[in-house]
Amino acid sequence: MVSSPSGAGKTTLCNRLLKTDKDLRLSISATTRPRRPGEVHGEDYYFVSEDEFFRMRDNNEFLESAEVFDHCYGTPREPVEKALAVGKDILFDIDWQGAQQLGETVPTDLVKVFILPPSRAELESRLKKRARDPDDVVALRMAKAESEISHWAEYDYAVVNYNLDEAEQLMRCILVAERLKRTRQTGLSDAVSNIISHN
Amino acid sequence: MVSSPSGAGKTTLCNRLLKTDKDLRLSISATTRPRRPGEVHGEDYYFVSEDEFFRMRDNNEFLESAEVFDHCYGTPREPVEKALAVGKDILFDIDWQGAQQLGETVPTDLVKVFILPPSRAELESRLKKRARDPDDVVALRMAKAESEISHWAEYDYAVVNYNLDEAEQLMRCILVAERLKRTRQTGLSDAVSNIISHN
Repeated sequence: MVSSPSGAGKTTLCNRLLKTDKDLRLSISATTRPRRPGEVHGEDYYFVSEDEFFRMRDNNEFLESAEVFDHCYGTPREPVEKALAVGKDILFDIDWQGAQQLGETVPTDLVKVFILPPSRAELESRLKKRARDPDDVVALRMAKAESEISHWAEYDYAVVNYNLDEAEQLMRCILVAERLKRTRQTGLSDAVSNIISHN
Repeated sequence: MVSSPSGAGKTTLCNRLLKTDKDLRLSISATTRPRRPGEVHGEDYYFVSEDEFFRMRDNNEFLESAEVFDHCYGTPREPVEKALAVGKDILFDIDWQGAQQLGETVPTDLVKVFILPPSRAELESRLKKRARDPDDVVALRMAKAESEISHWAEYDYAVVNYNLDEAEQLMRCILVAERLKRTRQTGLSDAVSNIISHN
């Protein structure tokens, strides 16, 4: 699970990991917000109507869901459970609210990573570059970023994104190391038994 | 903390990590066993007399100590505490008994890594190559290796040493990831405060 304020490089870093790691799959959220130009249904989001969203929610088809700025967002349960069942890992690109909810509903172990910008000046500069709007929108984005960052201490790992290549390597190390946890290497018990029993 | 049976590549892997990681220091054990040709006092071990060893032990100068095959081994406390105080990490190259004892006495958080050979055949072949003696010694070494491996489930991480370069990368990732744990990045709290407070 990866969270960060907008402008910290989260989406780019997640895409890099997904591109090179064949055992990692992205959880794609459902949303009622309108599709923006360039967004692809089933890649960026599952774009659904409000009726469909509430039907799914009432049918327990979400692992978590929330309403943000008049639009609904949810994490569909089925793709996650299917991927985990065949031994894949799921990457959740999610905000702190979704992270808190997922922490309560996902049965298997979650690894929570927070990506931080190197400084306030750098964060502000990145948000300005991204904004298509004048200063008031940047101020709003900045306030939202601050609110997100204030939850960083709820995460297991913190990665400061000084530059993308370095941050990508750090994220990859977290993935590799977490997979080396003894409790996750479920096949190793048999291998070890074969090593130490020789009769 | 790294444990493994003899012949799994532990010493080579530890040396590679120590060579390239300036924030990692090896804990050097004290021992009463005679120095072998090529061994250096203060590098391989601190070679001490039995009197000196027992004086140190009674003076609470060891983090752990044990008697193995008529010789005594101990982990001196002072170098460990000094290194930790200046922000270095300590690498313990230690067997399962020392690992258990250290787990009880070291106040700061330990990360326990067990290195496994890829197979029984490979372990046997490596032990044969190392032995200067005939088969009975190999059998004894094999029994000792089995005993060590039987404790693998007491460790946080398991690394199978299929080949040294790969295993080195995996060990390095564990180090990197563990240092990225939020609770270990003690300087980050202030940095985050500076990002989100702007008045």
